[in-house]
Amino acid sequence: MFLKESWYVFGWERDLDQAGGILGRVIIGEPVVIWRTAGGELRAMADRCPHRHAPLSRGRVEGDSIRCMYHGMTLGSDGRCTGMPLLDEPPDAGVRVYPVVAKDSWLWVWMGNPENADESFIPDAFGIDDPAQPMRASSIEYQANFQLVHDNLCDLSHVDFVHSGTLRVASGAWWSQSAPRIHAQGRALRFERWFIDADYPGKPGEKVDTWISYDFVLPGIFILRGARYPAGTAAAFEGKEPVGIEPLVRNIEQQAVTPMTERTTAYHYATGLVGSTPEMTARLAERMDVVMAAFEEDRQMIEAQQKIWDLTPPETAMVFLPQDRGPFQMRRMLRKAIENQG
Amino acid sequence: MFLKESWYVFGWERDLDQAGGILGRVIIGEPVVIWRTAGGELRAMADRCPHRHAPLSRGRVEGDSIRCMYHGMTLGSDGRCTGMPLLDEPPDAGVRVYPVVAKDSWLWVWMGNPENADESFIPDAFGIDDPAQPMRASSIEYQANFQLVHDNLCDLSHVDFVHSGTLRVASGAWWSQSAPRIHAQGRALRFERWFIDADYPGKPGEKVDTWISYDFVLPGIFILRGARYPAGTAAAFEGKEPVGIEPLVRNIEQQAVTPMTERTTAYHYATGLVGSTPEMTARLAERMDVVMAAFEEDRQMIEAQQKIWDLTPPETAMVFLPQDRGPFQMRRMLRKAIENQG
Amino acid sequence: MFLKESWYVFGWERDLDQAGGILGRVIIGEPVVIWRTAGGELRAMADRCPHRHAPLSRGRVEGDSIRCMYHGMTLGSDGRCTGMPLLDEPPDAGVRVYPVVAKDSWLWVWMGNPENADESFIPDAFGIDDPAQPMRASSIEYQANFQLVHDNLCDLSHVDFVHSGTLRVASGAWWSQSAPRIHAQGRALRFERWFIDADYPGKPGEKVDTWISYDFVLPGIFILRGARYPAGTAAAFEGKEPVGIEPLVRNIEQQAVTPMTERTTAYHYATGLVGSTPEMTARLAERMDVVMAAFEEDRQMIEAQQKIWDLTPPETAMVFLPQDRGPFQMRRMLRKAIENQG
Repeated sequence: MFLKESWYVFGWERDLDQAGGILGRVIIGEPVVIWRTAGGELRAMADRCPHRHAPLSRGRVEGDSIRCMYHGMTLGSDGRCTGMPLLDEPPDAGVRVYPVVAKDSWLWVWMGNPENADESFIPDAFGIDDPAQPMRASSIEYQANFQLVHDNLCDLSHVDFVHSGTLRVASGAWWSQSAPRIHAQGRALRFERWFIDADYPGKPGEKVDTWISYDFVLPGIFILRGARYPAGTAAAFEGKEPVGIEPLVRNIEQQAVTPMTERTTAYHYATGLVGSTPEMTARLAERMDVVMAAFEEDRQMIEAQQKIWDLTPPETAMVFLPQDRGPFQMRRMLRKAIENQG
Repeated sequence: MFLKESWYVFGWERDLDQAGGILGRVIIGEPVVIWRTAGGELRAMADRCPHRHAPLSRGRVEGDSIRCMYHGMTLGSDGRCTGMPLLDEPPDAGVRVYPVVAKDSWLWVWMGNPENADESFIPDAFGIDDPAQPMRASSIEYQANFQLVHDNLCDLSHVDFVHSGTLRVASGAWWSQSAPRIHAQGRALRFERWFIDADYPGKPGEKVDTWISYDFVLPGIFILRGARYPAGTAAAFEGKEPVGIEPLVRNIEQQAVTPMTERTTAYHYATGLVGSTPEMTARLAERMDVVMAAFEEDRQMIEAQQKIWDLTPPETAMVFLPQDRGPFQMRRMLRKAIENQG
Repeated sequence: MFLKESWYVFGWERDLDQAGGILGRVIIGEPVVIWRTAGGELRAMADRCPHRHAPLSRGRVEGDSIRCMYHGMTLGSDGRCTGMPLLDEPPDAGVRVYPVVAKDSWLWVWMGNPENADESFIPDAFGIDDPAQPMRASSIEYQANFQLVHDNLCDLSHVDFVHSGTLRVASGAWWSQSAPRIHAQGRALRFERWFIDADYPGKPGEKVDTWISYDFVLPGIFILRGARYPAGTAAAFEGKEPVGIEPLVRNIEQQAVTPMTERTTAYHYATGLVGSTPEMTARLAERMDVVMAAFEEDRQMIEAQQKIWDLTPPETAMVFLPQDRGPFQMRRMLRKAIENQG
């Protein structure tokens, strides 16, 4: 069961360029093709030629049309057939068009009723092309249901265990020993927390206060901001978000969970350090290696978890703990959003 | 849903020789073994020992019997058990025997009621062993339903798109710009067409009239004859089949589509040029490379199409175009044949 | 349909050591983890953390507890939760504990009601750690239902055909030319037989009488003892088991069939020659190569047989032969045991 009335991340905008301007993927069970017209305009359509249901993503862009390379039908920017060999007039045929937007280095597709496709619903991310905050980006694919990935991102206490040798150390913090504050805001959960007197990785013996704030926004966007301050800052701000003070260093994370099918999920992520110096760049490279290793750790755990779920009778109980408040609220938020779409 | 009352191509006769005279394959969901007795006679049976349902194709030919190499039961040419270790008399057991014929280099199996197995129903093909018309042959396997392969062969307008860099060029013709005439004849569709003033591949600047005639015969036999004539020939024959005149060159194609299961299909094909000269032989080698590349293009398109079909709600409409007359008639012909078999 | 009220072989005890003292496997459809406490005690539990159903086998042993390495829950030897990050008191949660025993180099798990887990039900095997009878051991996995493997072991007439170039020769006997005596004893079938005037492998021209006795015990334990005696011994003992006489050489086989799912089966086996001399050791090495080759022959046959079964309508008849008495009795014994467990 998927939320349809939503923007989804199709992938990185650069993926489309690398594919030559036409690219097909499956989102919430629907094949979607994104392409650029000769004029550079983005288009998203059902990846299914109305003639014989061949994938348009194996086709060719010709001016403002896309040509199916099975039997040659062309479809215009509006999804309507513009030509077919043998026919003087194009037949009355067409394909569903999806609203599509490039924003913050991602391609976003609206999978619901196009009339509801308000671009202001797209959550803010960082993008990977801002020289002021260099980022490294990649994608992986899970053989698991997307909700298990949501659960993972809405309970970062797992960092201490799944990532005990990677992110736990790189963050300098202990994630499971205190709980974040969680605020529900519309289609998002905001998580906020201080790590007080945490290690300052790369600076042995030094201690810092680290402020972490992250949003998980339906249908699966995770945006994290981290900042290290001199020890004592948390107390000075009485445990609230620090304002009017420059951190020693910031890190940012941008991630999207996109369901492909009930058992496969795409995951697009980027990681960066803010404050562009050669030293930062070198640390970003190192940090990205750690993050890549950590995403592989997540993948192995979640795919192993999926296998256990598949062997588990549905009535088997799960215990509900304080750690589960994030995942639980996100699942409820998603369920309500699905109910509300009618 | 398969047509049972029909001859099917099991494969190339030489495949059986290369397998040592015993070979098992799945046809329309049924495991079939073909083998040769010590005397060289062909036999086809259910590939399922009546004892413990082990595949007889892992067995051994002994004289006029086949021995199951699980527990040693032997079955005679008529499918009846002829012996079993420990038993003085063979038990009352046997296996279904299928009518089998070698013709035109293919092994044909009748999958329906043996009483209806009239060899005259087997369509004529060329065979690959006639020195007067050397051919090259091979087989591939599709991860797709056989009907998508039928559709492909009954609408060759796809040559201009799927094979734009291979067969389109090698044929010198534009296949999507005019339609063939189609005649239904019993269990076959005959397609005929002229390509007037077409390119003469290998002879830059020269133009020819090319006559193409191909039959698609249930349950999936495709036989094509092509012939090039001096430009003007089509007009001289008023668009009809040329008679009493030798072409400059002929090409022939022999292909069989055999459903294995609902989602896997075997495809056995050969291609040749008629007029056996060293130059022809050299061109055949070249042409076969092009044809091999083209079959791989088909496979990729059809398997991609199958994936889209699998993601498509069954009620999703398809537009019906003049190009679809061949596929449509073939699907109707198959449906009727299945209904008629009772 | 599986028998639950039974001990099952989880695997070789050394597998657990090689895995660092914690190992997860699927038995009769249930994920099970076996681990050793810091004190060395064996524990078996459902391989499913009560928190989020992650596999505990990806966890870590800490003293007498196992820690789930997803979110850090710890579970004690009794399966009850002993701790969870953020919580002062462990939550009321736990996981099913299975009785587990190490015996004869195998780890045995009781999959039914723990109250019924009587260790005396565990059949005797040889173990692979007795220097007086050196053995070589390994495991394979079948892509097939376990009953087809049972059938295979309860009808060794297949040795002459499946293993015609391996075990048939290595045994010096013809297995299909006479039938064993079969006695049902509780949850076991005992098979006994003489091979009279059989070849003595490694001693060309010499003849021996070979006594073979093997038990197949529910839910899938196969224990074989073979012994060669001077020709004439069988007659001297009137076809009964020889007593009070030392054989020329003994061989022993220890095998366990453990269903993982309906279509996958684990198989753990060892083979040995009794009478530990350097010559024996050399022959054991050779023999194990033959046995390994033979198990691969079984695997290929049984997986091929499974594919035929999957293509076969359930109503398709099988002939019942004297060879099938072993498999038939074993299937009936299993069916009754399943019925009796209520």
